[in-house]
Amino acid sequence: MISIDLNCDMGESFGAWRMGSDAEIMNYVSSVNVACGFHAGDATVMRQTVEAAAKKNIAIGAHPSFPDLQGFGRREMKMSEQEIFDVVIYQISALNGICRASGAKMRHVKPHGALYNSAAINQPIAAAIVRAVKAFDETLSFYGLSSSYLISEAEKIKLKTVSEVFADRTYQTDGTLTPRVQSNALIENERDSIAQILQMIKTQTVTTVDGQIIPIKAETVCIHGDAPRAARLARAIRQSLIENNIKIGAV
Amino acid sequence: MISIDLNCDMGESFGAWRMGSDAEIMNYVSSVNVACGFHAGDATVMRQTVEAAAKKNIAIGAHPSFPDLQGFGRREMKMSEQEIFDVVIYQISALNGICRASGAKMRHVKPHGALYNSAAINQPIAAAIVRAVKAFDETLSFYGLSSSYLISEAEKIKLKTVSEVFADRTYQTDGTLTPRVQSNALIENERDSIAQILQMIKTQTVTTVDGQIIPIKAETVCIHGDAPRAARLARAIRQSLIENNIKIGAV
Amino acid sequence: MISIDLNCDMGESFGAWRMGSDAEIMNYVSSVNVACGFHAGDATVMRQTVEAAAKKNIAIGAHPSFPDLQGFGRREMKMSEQEIFDVVIYQISALNGICRASGAKMRHVKPHGALYNSAAINQPIAAAIVRAVKAFDETLSFYGLSSSYLISEAEKIKLKTVSEVFADRTYQTDGTLTPRVQSNALIENERDSIAQILQMIKTQTVTTVDGQIIPIKAETVCIHGDAPRAARLARAIRQSLIENNIKIGAV
Amino acid sequence: MISIDLNCDMGESFGAWRMGSDAEIMNYVSSVNVACGFHAGDATVMRQTVEAAAKKNIAIGAHPSFPDLQGFGRREMKMSEQEIFDVVIYQISALNGICRASGAKMRHVKPHGALYNSAAINQPIAAAIVRAVKAFDETLSFYGLSSSYLISEAEKIKLKTVSEVFADRTYQTDGTLTPRVQSNALIENERDSIAQILQMIKTQTVTTVDGQIIPIKAETVCIHGDAPRAARLARAIRQSLIENNIKIGAV
Repeated sequence: MISIDLNCDMGESFGAWRMGSDAEIMNYVSSVNVACGFHAGDATVMRQTVEAAAKKNIAIGAHPSFPDLQGFGRREMKMSEQEIFDVVIYQISALNGICRASGAKMRHVKPHGALYNSAAINQPIAAAIVRAVKAFDETLSFYGLSSSYLISEAEKIKLKTVSEVFADRTYQTDGTLTPRVQSNALIENERDSIAQILQMIKTQTVTTVDGQIIPIKAETVCIHGDAPRAARLARAIRQSLIENNIKIGAV
Repeated sequence: MISIDLNCDMGESFGAWRMGSDAEIMNYVSSVNVACGFHAGDATVMRQTVEAAAKKNIAIGAHPSFPDLQGFGRREMKMSEQEIFDVVIYQISALNGICRASGAKMRHVKPHGALYNSAAINQPIAAAIVRAVKAFDETLSFYGLSSSYLISEAEKIKLKTVSEVFADRTYQTDGTLTPRVQSNALIENERDSIAQILQMIKTQTVTTVDGQIIPIKAETVCIHGDAPRAARLARAIRQSLIENNIKIGAV
Repeated sequence: MISIDLNCDMGESFGAWRMGSDAEIMNYVSSVNVACGFHAGDATVMRQTVEAAAKKNIAIGAHPSFPDLQGFGRREMKMSEQEIFDVVIYQISALNGICRASGAKMRHVKPHGALYNSAAINQPIAAAIVRAVKAFDETLSFYGLSSSYLISEAEKIKLKTVSEVFADRTYQTDGTLTPRVQSNALIENERDSIAQILQMIKTQTVTTVDGQIIPIKAETVCIHGDAPRAARLARAIRQSLIENNIKIGAV
Repeated sequence: MISIDLNCDMGESFGAWRMGSDAEIMNYVSSVNVACGFHAGDATVMRQTVEAAAKKNIAIGAHPSFPDLQGFGRREMKMSEQEIFDVVIYQISALNGICRASGAKMRHVKPHGALYNSAAINQPIAAAIVRAVKAFDETLSFYGLSSSYLISEAEKIKLKTVSEVFADRTYQTDGTLTPRVQSNALIENERDSIAQILQMIKTQTVTTVDGQIIPIKAETVCIHGDAPRAARLARAIRQSLIENNIKIGAV
C-alpha cells in the first residue's frame, strides 16, 4: 500500500491575532509545522499548538523563519550563513523544549516562507540550515522542496529527508514551481489539485505547465492552512487519498 | 573546606551593540546566566557566550526575562501566570538547544531583572516560573534571592535551589534587599563588599543597615557584569575568597 | 439638539494578521482611534486606515500604547514618566505624519488599553501623557475616561478634553467602571447598552450596579471594534441615537 | 569661499545599549542623521539626540531604515515599494514630531545602511523613498550617494538634493564605491582620507583606485560615528577644512 504524509503550517496566530483553522485542519493532516515566534507564533500559541497536535497524534515539526513578524517571514533577508545557522537553532530549540515540557516529541523541521524559498535555490543557505538541524539533533527529519538544494544539502550530511510537493502550485519543465507572479502559478480548482496530487503520489511524476511529464519525488504534500478554503481542500484531499487506497501518515 | 559559587549575568550584547566584559569576567566566576533574547542577547550572542563559557568549564544557566528589549527586562509587566510559564519555557528551551548544538550543558536557571524582583515578592509569579523550569527539566538547579518566594516555591516542588546573595547591595532587618531608591542601598566600597561576602559565606549571617546580625543562606554570590568596575570587583572578590580558603565552584 | 461623538479603536491589524471590521464600523462612528505600531498597526495598516477614515470624513485620532505587540498593549508596564512621555510623542508623531502625507488631519489622541487604564487612576502617568500631547500640538483634543485623571490632568494644562463613556460596561457608585474580573462588569444585552447610552447622553447620569443614579459627563461613546458583534452593536446604537434626535459627530 | 556640510549618523544607542560618541562628534559636524527606531534609536534616545543637536545648532535629519534592529539595518530586505514608502513616512514622521515637541526643526532625510545601499543601485526603491519624503514634506533636503539613483530620483521629483561623498571609502572608475569585500575599499590612513576630501571639495573630482581622476559632486561628507577613532577623524577633518579656508555648514 502506497503511503503519503500530509503536512500543514500551523500555530501562526500571534498574541491577540488569530490565523488559520488549526483545530479543523488537524483532523486531516499527519504532520504540522509549528511557527517558532520569528514570523508568527508566540510562546503561548506554540504550547497550545503542540498540545493540540500531540492529542491527535500528529507529527510535530519546527517551522523556522527569517526574523520578520511584520512581514510574516515572506520577505527575503540577506543574512550571513552563520546568522542563519544561529536563528535556526534558536527556533527549533524553542519548539523542541515546548514539546518536551508538554510531553510531546518534535520529529521534523521545515523552513518557512522566504527562508524556504531562498534555500531551495541557494546552496550555502540550504547548507547553513541543514547544518543547524544536524547540530541540534541528527535524528530529525528535514522537509524541503522536492529536487531542491534543501533536499540535496540535507542528504549530503545524512539527514533523513522528506521531499515536499504542492497540491495547489503548478510545476515548470525544470521541476521548479511556477513563480507566483505568473498567472498560471496556482491551481485554483479543487479537482485539478487532487488530480495532480494523485498523479504525483502514484506515479512519482508531475505534468508541467507545458504538458510534459517529468519525474518528481513526492513524500509529503503541503496543505496551505491560511487560505480561506484551506480546511475544505484538506478534507477533500484526505478523502480522495483514502478512496484511492493511499495511506496517510508521517514519514 | 567551605565552598561558594560566583555567578554573573552574561551574553547581554544584542546585534551591533556590545555590553559587559564577558571574556574577562569569565576568568573569575564559576557560573554564568545567559540572556535568552527577551531582554538582551540574540541567537548569535547566545551561541558565542555558550561556547566561551564551555571552553572555560563554567556552569551555564538560562536567564529568562519579561519580553522587553528596549527596557532591558527591568520594567515590571503584568503578565498572567500562564504567559510567564510559557515565556520561561520558550527562553530556557532556546538556550538549552544552543548548548546542546555546541556540545555544552545547561545546568541552571535564574530569572532576570523585573521578573526576578517580581517573583521574589509575589508567590504566584514565583510558582509559575519554577513550574516552567520543572516541566522542562526537573534536574535543573534554580537560582533565586535567598529567603524569597523564588526559593520557597522551588523547594515546594523539589527543584534543587541555590540561594543567592549580593556583594554590592545592603540588607534590611527583614532579610530583604534595601530598595535601590534609598541612598544606602548600594555598597560602593570594594572592601565593604568583600567583607559582607566573607561574613555571609563564613557565618551565613549578614549585618543589616541598622546594625543587626541576621541569618542568611548564601550559596551563590551575584557579580554584576554591567557595572563599569565589574571585572575589577570580580577579580578582587575571587582573590579574597582564595586567600580565605574558600573554594569557588558551581553548586 | 443634543449631540454626541461615537468613537472606535481601529487599524488594529498587523502585518499578515487582520483584526476588526474597520470598513463596516466606519459607517457608524464619527471618530476613530488609530493604533500606532506599538500594540497593533504597522506603517501600511496605519496609512490604509487613515485613507479610509479621511474618505468618510471621520475624525482621526492617535491611539498610543505601551510597547507590547504580543500583549496587544493590554499588560501594564512600569515605565517611567519620561519614558511614557517619549513613547507617546513618538507614536502620535508617526500617525500625524501619515495623516499629513495622506492629506488628512489628526485631531485627537486617546491612550490605549493598559496605558489608558493605568493613567485613569494614576495621576503622574496621566500627567506624562497629556504633557506629551501638548508638547506635540496643543490644539489636539484629548479623549479620556470620564471623571478620571486622564481628564483632570488634561484640563489642568488646558488641553481640550472629551469625556468618554462606555456602552457595554457597568459603573460603580464612585463613578469608576466595574472591574472586568467581576461578573457584572459587562452589559451583554444590546437593549441595555443602548438604554445606558441614551440615559448618559440625555441626562448626563448613569445608573450604577447597585441602583444609584450618579452624574457622569458623556461627550463620546466608545464602541469596541474587536468584539464579534461589534458592527451590529455600532449600527444599532447609531440608529437609536438618530431615532432619539441625537446628532452624531466628532466634538 | 567654498563651503561643505559634514554629516554623521547619530542616536544609534538603544535602550540600555550605548553606541557612538555623539556628544563629542557633535562638536565637529554640521548635520546629524538621527536613527528612528527601526535599526537603532528609541523614543527616548531620539529626543535626547534632537535636544543635543538643537542646542549646538546642528542641522537635524531623519535616518530611516529597513525594520531590523538585530541586524542594525545592514541586511537587505525584499520589501515592496509600497512597504518602503510606508515605513519611510512612519520613521521621518516620528522624528519630525519629536523635533517639533522639542522646539527643533527636521531639515533633511538620509536613508540608512542596506536601504541606502539598495536604493543607490535600484531605481524603484530610490523612487519609493523620495516619494515618501516628498509626500511628507516637499521642503526637506534629501541626502544620497553622489551620482546614484538616490540623487537622480530625488531630482526627478524636484526635491532639494545633497550629494554625499565618503572620507574613508575608495571609488571605482565608474564613480561607485569600491565594495567592502575588496581589500582596497577602505582608506585606513587619516592623511589619505583628508587628502581625498580636500580634492573632492576643491575640485569636485576624485582619484579612483586605478589612478584615474573622475568628476564627483561633493556637497556633504559622511563621517562614520561608530568607528573607534571616529571622533578623532572628525576633529582632524574639521581642522583641515578650516585650515584650507573651507566653510563648514549644512546646505
